Amino acid sequence: MVAVHVLNGPNLNLLGTREPGTYGAVTLAGVEERLRRRAEAAGVELTFRQTNFEGEFVTFIQQAGLAGAGVVINAGAYTHTSVALRDAIKGVDALAIEVHISNVHASEEFRHHSYMAPVCVGVICGFGVASYDLAFDAIVPLLEKRAAKAA
Amino acid sequence: MVAVHVLNGPNLNLLGTREPGTYGAVTLAGVEERLRRRAEAAGVELTFRQTNFEGEFVTFIQQAGLAGAGVVINAGAYTHTSVALRDAIKGVDALAIEVHISNVHASEEFRHHSYMAPVCVGVICGFGVASYDLAFDAIVPLLEKRAAKAA
Amino acid sequence: MVAVHVLNGPNLNLLGTREPGTYGAVTLAGVEERLRRRAEAAGVELTFRQTNFEGEFVTFIQQAGLAGAGVVINAGAYTHTSVALRDAIKGVDALAIEVHISNVHASEEFRHHSYMAPVCVGVICGFGVASYDLAFDAIVPLLEKRAAKAA
Amino acid sequence: MVAVHVLNGPNLNLLGTREPGTYGAVTLAGVEERLRRRAEAAGVELTFRQTNFEGEFVTFIQQAGLAGAGVVINAGAYTHTSVALRDAIKGVDALAIEVHISNVHASEEFRHHSYMAPVCVGVICGFGVASYDLAFDAIVPLLEKRAAKAA
Amino acid sequence: MVAVHVLNGPNLNLLGTREPGTYGAVTLAGVEERLRRRAEAAGVELTFRQTNFEGEFVTFIQQAGLAGAGVVINAGAYTHTSVALRDAIKGVDALAIEVHISNVHASEEFRHHSYMAPVCVGVICGFGVASYDLAFDAIVPLLEKRAAKAA
Amino acid sequence: MVAVHVLNGPNLNLLGTREPGTYGAVTLAGVEERLRRRAEAAGVELTFRQTNFEGEFVTFIQQAGLAGAGVVINAGAYTHTSVALRDAIKGVDALAIEVHISNVHASEEFRHHSYMAPVCVGVICGFGVASYDLAFDAIVPLLEKRAAKAA
Amino acid sequence: MVAVHVLNGPNLNLLGTREPGTYGAVTLAGVEERLRRRAEAAGVELTFRQTNFEGEFVTFIQQAGLAGAGVVINAGAYTHTSVALRDAIKGVDALAIEVHISNVHASEEFRHHSYMAPVCVGVICGFGVASYDLAFDAIVPLLEKRAAKAA
Amino acid sequence: MVAVHVLNGPNLNLLGTREPGTYGAVTLAGVEERLRRRAEAAGVELTFRQTNFEGEFVTFIQQAGLAGAGVVINAGAYTHTSVALRDAIKGVDALAIEVHISNVHASEEFRHHSYMAPVCVGVICGFGVASYDLAFDAIVPLLEKRAAKAA
Amino acid sequence: MVAVHVLNGPNLNLLGTREPGTYGAVTLAGVEERLRRRAEAAGVELTFRQTNFEGEFVTFIQQAGLAGAGVVINAGAYTHTSVALRDAIKGVDALAIEVHISNVHASEEFRHHSYMAPVCVGVICGFGVASYDLAFDAIVPLLEKRAAKAA
Amino acid sequence: MVAVHVLNGPNLNLLGTREPGTYGAVTLAGVEERLRRRAEAAGVELTFRQTNFEGEFVTFIQQAGLAGAGVVINAGAYTHTSVALRDAIKGVDALAIEVHISNVHASEEFRHHSYMAPVCVGVICGFGVASYDLAFDAIVPLLEKRAAKAA
Amino acid sequence: MVAVHVLNGPNLNLLGTREPGTYGAVTLAGVEERLRRRAEAAGVELTFRQTNFEGEFVTFIQQAGLAGAGVVINAGAYTHTSVALRDAIKGVDALAIEVHISNVHASEEFRHHSYMAPVCVGVICGFGVASYDLAFDAIVPLLEKRAAKAA
Amino acid sequence: MVAVHVLNGPNLNLLGTREPGTYGAVTLAGVEERLRRRAEAAGVELTFRQTNFEGEFVTFIQQAGLAGAGVVINAGAYTHTSVALRDAIKGVDALAIEVHISNVHASEEFRHHSYMAPVCVGVICGFGVASYDLAFDAIVPLLEKRAAKAA
Repeated sequence: MVAVHVLNGPNLNLLGTREPGTYGAVTLAGVEERLRRRAEAAGVELTFRQTNFEGEFVTFIQQAGLAGAGVVINAGAYTHTSVALRDAIKGVDALAIEVHISNVHASEEFRHHSYMAPVCVGVICGFGVASYDLAFDAIVPLLEKRAAKAA
Repeated sequence: MVAVHVLNGPNLNLLGTREPGTYGAVTLAGVEERLRRRAEAAGVELTFRQTNFEGEFVTFIQQAGLAGAGVVINAGAYTHTSVALRDAIKGVDALAIEVHISNVHASEEFRHHSYMAPVCVGVICGFGVASYDLAFDAIVPLLEKRAAKAA
Repeated sequence: MVAVHVLNGPNLNLLGTREPGTYGAVTLAGVEERLRRRAEAAGVELTFRQTNFEGEFVTFIQQAGLAGAGVVINAGAYTHTSVALRDAIKGVDALAIEVHISNVHASEEFRHHSYMAPVCVGVICGFGVASYDLAFDAIVPLLEKRAAKAA
Repeated sequence: MVAVHVLNGPNLNLLGTREPGTYGAVTLAGVEERLRRRAEAAGVELTFRQTNFEGEFVTFIQQAGLAGAGVVINAGAYTHTSVALRDAIKGVDALAIEVHISNVHASEEFRHHSYMAPVCVGVICGFGVASYDLAFDAIVPLLEKRAAKAA
Repeated sequence: MVAVHVLNGPNLNLLGTREPGTYGAVTLAGVEERLRRRAEAAGVELTFRQTNFEGEFVTFIQQAGLAGAGVVINAGAYTHTSVALRDAIKGVDALAIEVHISNVHASEEFRHHSYMAPVCVGVICGFGVASYDLAFDAIVPLLEKRAAKAA
Repeated sequence: MVAVHVLNGPNLNLLGTREPGTYGAVTLAGVEERLRRRAEAAGVELTFRQTNFEGEFVTFIQQAGLAGAGVVINAGAYTHTSVALRDAIKGVDALAIEVHISNVHASEEFRHHSYMAPVCVGVICGFGVASYDLAFDAIVPLLEKRAAKAA
Repeated sequence: MVAVHVLNGPNLNLLGTREPGTYGAVTLAGVEERLRRRAEAAGVELTFRQTNFEGEFVTFIQQAGLAGAGVVINAGAYTHTSVALRDAIKGVDALAIEVHISNVHASEEFRHHSYMAPVCVGVICGFGVASYDLAFDAIVPLLEKRAAKAA
Repeated sequence: MVAVHVLNGPNLNLLGTREPGTYGAVTLAGVEERLRRRAEAAGVELTFRQTNFEGEFVTFIQQAGLAGAGVVINAGAYTHTSVALRDAIKGVDALAIEVHISNVHASEEFRHHSYMAPVCVGVICGFGVASYDLAFDAIVPLLEKRAAKAA
Repeated sequence: MVAVHVLNGPNLNLLGTREPGTYGAVTLAGVEERLRRRAEAAGVELTFRQTNFEGEFVTFIQQAGLAGAGVVINAGAYTHTSVALRDAIKGVDALAIEVHISNVHASEEFRHHSYMAPVCVGVICGFGVASYDLAFDAIVPLLEKRAAKAA
Repeated sequence: MVAVHVLNGPNLNLLGTREPGTYGAVTLAGVEERLRRRAEAAGVELTFRQTNFEGEFVTFIQQAGLAGAGVVINAGAYTHTSVALRDAIKGVDALAIEVHISNVHASEEFRHHSYMAPVCVGVICGFGVASYDLAFDAIVPLLEKRAAKAA
Repeated sequence: MVAVHVLNGPNLNLLGTREPGTYGAVTLAGVEERLRRRAEAAGVELTFRQTNFEGEFVTFIQQAGLAGAGVVINAGAYTHTSVALRDAIKGVDALAIEVHISNVHASEEFRHHSYMAPVCVGVICGFGVASYDLAFDAIVPLLEKRAAKAA
Repeated sequence: MVAVHVLNGPNLNLLGTREPGTYGAVTLAGVEERLRRRAEAAGVELTFRQTNFEGEFVTFIQQAGLAGAGVVINAGAYTHTSVALRDAIKGVDALAIEVHISNVHASEEFRHHSYMAPVCVGVICGFGVASYDLAFDAIVPLLEKRAAKAA
């Protein structure tokens, strides 16, 4: 059975309360619930986590990767500053997708660069919490293909 | 009725024959067919075009925008060099999504920058021709929401 | 008799409809009409053209220069990205003026640089469609002086 | 009655004697006389000043702005180095036009950047002393429009 | 039979009339004739084309590459600004040589960089129209070697 | 009643023992005591915390902001590297002041840049542990004004 | 008796009238009066000056430094462009504090750099005219400590 | 008795399993065992730790430094992004050596820079897990010399 | 009779009292006296001036140049920030030498660049007040040669 | 009689043994022999040299230039680092062609820049040892034209 | 039998006399002697050389590499400026270690970059002359492993 | 007795023949003769040398420094590229003056930077061969002062 870990970084615990004009009114719990329904429908095992700690995020990625799960990563601010997350993805050879709720390319210059993107399969940003849904839809067939190849 | 224009830039006419290791074996006609089926199912009017000319691409965007259609744009090389495309999107206030077949962030440095991204809703890259499917799924509800608001 | 070619680049066909807050309500046809009246009064032959194609713009400049006409150029986005336009101006030794409707120096950083400016006589920007009028007033005496010198 | 202050910066007192190949043979007094005739014809009150001092230039701009006059500014070298002039324009919310006798974009790299341009209405450069005439023609209708709006 | 496409970019239609001090007095037709004689002597099929359009240049490269012809490219200004040409060469895996009439390294800084050079076999610049002859002499044995290998 | 959280970042637990020539002999406990006396006198509720963890610092800021407290932040090294702290301040719309014991502008180049400063009210640096006192004196009236406005 | 010179740079004479949204409604005379009351209470001799001239500002700093007074400097635009002010502070070994009314780090990029900051004791910015009060409170004990050491 | 702390940063817990082609097959436990044997032979007290947390790494360095131990640091990704680690080393005046298993200078550009290196005694990189052995051999005589000097 | 103007910029009035370790104990009056003796011996008319004002310095250069005098310039801080001084030298086509008391290349990075140097004959720096003597010895024969050529 | 010096720089003595995949199997002696046959056929006097020393390379260029010979230069690594070679070419006004065996534009970034190219007639790179043949063919007519002009 | 060449670059002949505070009191002869004893003990053939010439250093590396010896390289200043040394190492596929006596990362910015490091096995710096010992200890097992593999 | 070594770098052997418009007609032998007369008059021992080799230049500087002689250095192209020369000057703690015949600040950008200048006493450039005379006059009293201090 295919598994997906959705990992959220610093300040995403504020989702739904924080700058609703930019980030919408859905809370992180709301995002989790949407994805749980989607996962159930697709027969996918879902793990959903959040942390403000870079070090804990590294651990989350390692655990996902070692468990053979796909990883949907919204690393928030760490996207732009963390080499450790990149190394974690590469270290466990994780099949990962980078997502962002807002369009980072329309934000400050320093948010245009991502340390993780080059070691991810792809990037999805700008669609509000629907970015997660799209990433979920994108990662499942990739995991199934990988599983099929491994079988 | 909601309309979507899928616009393809230089060299995408080679799709399926060009560097299959990187870009897969599906041709541009194949992509169009996939999207036509999807559009039919969703009750969406689809326009699908390709050009090697920057100037013609500008015109395509203007036509899409003036017709009130959403735009899925794979501008290929022009993504990184064309201010004219950005101006076209902004000029007709188009609801646009930038897509790429490959993960541009894993390519040469000069492919990490996009002139269009800041005036698009969002970006999807790295999922092969499935990037188009995801963009289609992402743009339809946005267009419906806009239509509802306008009504 | 002195001749002036007024050449307009990508997206200027949208003028008057596009971002009226920034670019005003006059259409490109309106600009042409204003200039035709001005040209008639001054006894100047006027050619007025627009294209979204960089290649066609190159051809327009060549034709103007080879015909000995002065050139008023609003190259829009190509101002900032096209070396080909610069080469065209220099190649036919055209007497050219660069104009912009808006104040490009108050826009994004990448609009502060112009490839053409160093091979033009001068630059006029920021006066709305009146930028064209000022350029017309500026170029006529320069052409007359050149004609007198050649005579 | 509409008023225009024409303010000239460092070394412009040398005009007409300094590098005539580049700057022409008209002296600053000659420029003033041309503009006085033009102002008289247009029914505009003209103030014409020069200073080598950045600090005095700041004061000139403040006086012009507080008097509700439009400002035509040839700040010479201070164009490229003075944040104080920019702050003065912004501080008194002056309606200002930046002019240059020569085409600064064909000069040294450091002359391509202007601290003032983003807070001016527009820029005119490269037409010899006729740059002043064009700026005068450009600013009068803007001042009249502003006066009309205020009335 | 070995085939070579010689493709010329923007403003090269002016050759022989444009800045003869730098580019010499031979016209583009003259270049074609020289190469036709050379091609005839070598038993090589020659195609010779010029365009001011970047998009058309992309198409020319694709046609040459798909036909298995070698390509001698003088892309003029597009050398320095076009990622699309680079992608075209790579997309059809063309055996290409970049040529320039003048020594681009002795020109403006922005002419020192070429987007195409890294995907070409080599570069020849600075020898006037003889650059074409040298490129022709260089490409024929490479094509023959490739043909022999394929046989 | 007005509340202030004073948050200290990595290595500030060493204060008083670490490089006394630069940072003085007062320990962090000493700083807290000074501020407690000041807070008592001013009738302000004081929270005083230190952490070496970026993730915990994010949480501290969130807690302060959500509690409606003002925040005095000495983020130490994280000032220069953490986008997460900036996002936390902005996410909870905290009224924050950045402080430093030493004059960071007299230190290494990389200490001249602060990710947080643009989302803080202001910055105070260089006054030894008195920087905290000044920040305290600065933040109280701002909080009172905000409270008054909210009332 | 301890003495403090408060020196104000270009355009600060406009304070209270200039962009009140950003700079508040207190005039420079108002600032002076606030500080005179504070100085009287503290038994400190106050000198309060403003100039638009960089050269006069240099002289003011020299006079303050040679008189053994502390210096509170709001150099306005000269903060970012003047090496001469830095040299003056260092030349007379002045005990100086840099202040700004607004938060310069939330302004244009070129306002993030200060030539003076590295030779000042510290920097205070962003607290409106209260920045002066804080600087006054900060400098008095430093001057008393220096006086005590010298005694 | 001389003491050495060997501190390992993010993802080094994966050693031996992660990219064996680059990092070899020895696990972190294997490294520890090698060093324990070496330490025993040299009569040195060894502490061996790993963490994915930057904040915990700061604490580890502080503890080592305050205990007077030498420090062998493989900070992994934090080498390139953490100012906090640099401050910790300097704050406790630790005698530290930076080590890397792979040759960071043959990796991505951003891995060529180290925030810690300037405050370390020296750097050893590229020798696989033998980098640790070499660092151990290098630090012991330095610690003995320091101890002798202190005695 | 040959004339030399020695022009001194901001803070040079402090010479001899300011940082004697770096600049020596000779005052500016002392420098003048040394040069007066030298000038008398050489039969050269000497003008010696100092100003803290950039604008006045511009005027000094203009006066020197228009009088046909050679100019020895120690512009202090303005060396690195003033385009106006450069324009003044070029505007009056002054025969000028740039001097510095200290070795600017051993100072902060921003002191390595001089706006004036490219329009001066040469540069002399690092020899204490003897830099003036050397410049005097260098300029006299150049002025005599120029005078001879003009005669 | 026309003379050509072919000068080879550091490590070219390894040719044929060094990285044959990139540089081919022909040795430097082999290159010399090919060129000797070509020179004989063309009635050209050939000098062929190699050195690992920058200083000796300078001397070789001087000797070639002073002897009126054309120079074919493969300076290897010195191409990218040596200003001395550039000065030598310019100092003796040598008619020089820069050649490279491999396509330097497809190598590391630092190999894209050449100090010599701007003072050479042209550049040929990427054709293996045939680069030398092409350079020989290119230089002979240039030398003959120069000789004819001098006669 | 395993062989090691220890190659020293410019100014290392001064070792022991030059800046003893930074480089210690051991002379280069002293270093050689230490290494000879170490080599003898290890049964390794040692070659020890020094040159001030970049060209001779290239030759030394070639000789070492062609002889199958390992190379310990302290290239001094050439580390930062010489592409030729890098090419030599790569050209003969030498097994090389870069060493430095001082910690180059604590020196001027331009000493942080090494052209050679990416083609070496690893780097050791900062341990005084013990850097050589460590490099010797590091290279011997690598050479033995390579010999074993070749056998 | 005071000794001065005048050291000349690459291509200075061409002096007097090379670009006389820029460098004048005096040969290097002529320079030497001028200086010999000057040295004789001053009772100074003169050594005068030239080399095209960076390595030999390093040796020359070492010999001069170890002999206690002052050094006048015209390193030509090596000024801008050689760290080895800088290290030599610093290594033997030479009292050195950098000279240039032409004004390097009026040449290409890459000639504005000198690796040696920060470790020299001062710099003299732009006075033709008189630069040497000025340097000689400058260095003699510095050497005498040093000798007196040592005595």
